[in-house]
Amino acid sequence: MVANLDTQTWLTDGDKNIAFSIRHQGKRLFQQQSPYQLVEVFESYAYGRVLTVDGLVMCTEADEHAYHEMIVHVPMLAHRQVRKVLVIGGGDGGTVREILRHPKVESVTLVEIDAVVIEASRQYLPTLSSTLNHEKLNLLIGDGIEYIQQASDETFDLIIVDSSDPIGPAQGLFNKDFFLQVKRCLRPNGLMTAQSESPWFHSESLTDLTHCLRSIFEGDRVHPYLVFIPTYPTGMWSFIYAAKGDIHPWQNLDRAQAQAFAERESLQYYNADVHLAAFSLPTFVRKLLSA
Amino acid sequence: MVANLDTQTWLTDGDKNIAFSIRHQGKRLFQQQSPYQLVEVFESYAYGRVLTVDGLVMCTEADEHAYHEMIVHVPMLAHRQVRKVLVIGGGDGGTVREILRHPKVESVTLVEIDAVVIEASRQYLPTLSSTLNHEKLNLLIGDGIEYIQQASDETFDLIIVDSSDPIGPAQGLFNKDFFLQVKRCLRPNGLMTAQSESPWFHSESLTDLTHCLRSIFEGDRVHPYLVFIPTYPTGMWSFIYAAKGDIHPWQNLDRAQAQAFAERESLQYYNADVHLAAFSLPTFVRKLLSA
Repeated sequence: MVANLDTQTWLTDGDKNIAFSIRHQGKRLFQQQSPYQLVEVFESYAYGRVLTVDGLVMCTEADEHAYHEMIVHVPMLAHRQVRKVLVIGGGDGGTVREILRHPKVESVTLVEIDAVVIEASRQYLPTLSSTLNHEKLNLLIGDGIEYIQQASDETFDLIIVDSSDPIGPAQGLFNKDFFLQVKRCLRPNGLMTAQSESPWFHSESLTDLTHCLRSIFEGDRVHPYLVFIPTYPTGMWSFIYAAKGDIHPWQNLDRAQAQAFAERESLQYYNADVHLAAFSLPTFVRKLLSA
Repeated sequence: MVANLDTQTWLTDGDKNIAFSIRHQGKRLFQQQSPYQLVEVFESYAYGRVLTVDGLVMCTEADEHAYHEMIVHVPMLAHRQVRKVLVIGGGDGGTVREILRHPKVESVTLVEIDAVVIEASRQYLPTLSSTLNHEKLNLLIGDGIEYIQQASDETFDLIIVDSSDPIGPAQGLFNKDFFLQVKRCLRPNGLMTAQSESPWFHSESLTDLTHCLRSIFEGDRVHPYLVFIPTYPTGMWSFIYAAKGDIHPWQNLDRAQAQAFAERESLQYYNADVHLAAFSLPTFVRKLLSA
């Protein structure tokens, strides 16, 4: 970390060799130590309000749309018949908000380990937490790993792993036992997506998770994709799509339907072209994942 | 700027609200004040050697391929018959290196205002400057604006504006008079590309340049595209493609030929899929450019 960056007015993410910093207005809007982590909300100058855990940026009001729209609408619009969804993590509410844009969805179960994240978002991130009281939402405070171990077979059309970095409480969300359970709980045509870090930063998380999912799902049913997220280190962020059945992430897309949805919902990042383009990986990323 | 970041070991780019920092090994490999700017080369930990002007990152060994491959091969492989190329800026040599991968090219003219940039690259960035002595290269030290004012009509198949930020010596490379000259000097089927900053950072440069080019070239012949560049602020960088004739940037692509080229040349970022995908803009970028 950049030891002498002024932590009173700058949030910094990164490691010992690179750093990404956002200036904020000094005072914390929210600050509470949970059993898991220090949860804070700041008012930044460039990106609106920022949610952090242990000082690391989880999301900002200005660019959270890229993350939440792309982790949700890519599988939703590939599948087209999603009724029942499970979200592991995602206590800020952004993922739930995007899922509930789809009228066919009948229920969403959110399992967030840290009630303080939900509280912070409810109080200070109203555009993210706007649907956390929705009647279709089953909001559970608990361990996603335990939840999925006890969940019934073939229950969900879509499972979204909206985790923080694979350190601290989210570590168990990056291993094979967990994803075996995810697959078991998916309906035969079910899909999953997970955030999978940056090809430039924590790249072993992306490669390990890709290999892990290829060993669980069939190899040609695992598809990493990329999104620009300026407030995450390096700005290049990855997600992984995996299908239990044969729903292909772009061959199965009804482009006209996807585009009409994006326009009707006034999405900020996702559109039908971006859905397809996100799977076109630069050659060095392809090589990283085939190694 | 982050006032108290340790400038002895960190390079920082950004503005008063966001910052992107790369740690280096302390000593400058190269440092010389030119008539235009302070030119330096550092050895960083995460991205290899870094060329800076006035303390801002121009390119790094680790991620320069994204920039240089995408500013060059997109127009080259759309056009497919490029013989004569003009590069304004680009004294590090990376753009020339990529152009000369295409055997049909007969001559490249590079006009770089700052001989010290070329000297720094020749001495300390051998992978970038590797073709600066090539027999097809006409290397001129001079003002690109003056050069193009005096150049003959319809001379080049491709003109690449490989400028630094639109402050300091590159300011005149972001205005209408300059691009009117660029169009004049293109052959009837000629193409141009220019780096055009980030939609998240200096976004007015991108919007102004897009509108400027649409007023010069026909509107449907101007196509912004996006590339992931982790060492530039926000990681999301744009280029603009403009065609004097009707060569369309992706409808005119021979995908098989483009992919074969990328593989033969062992490119690190560009491939035929990425060529197409780069033009799929997130909705907020589309809106920014249509405003």
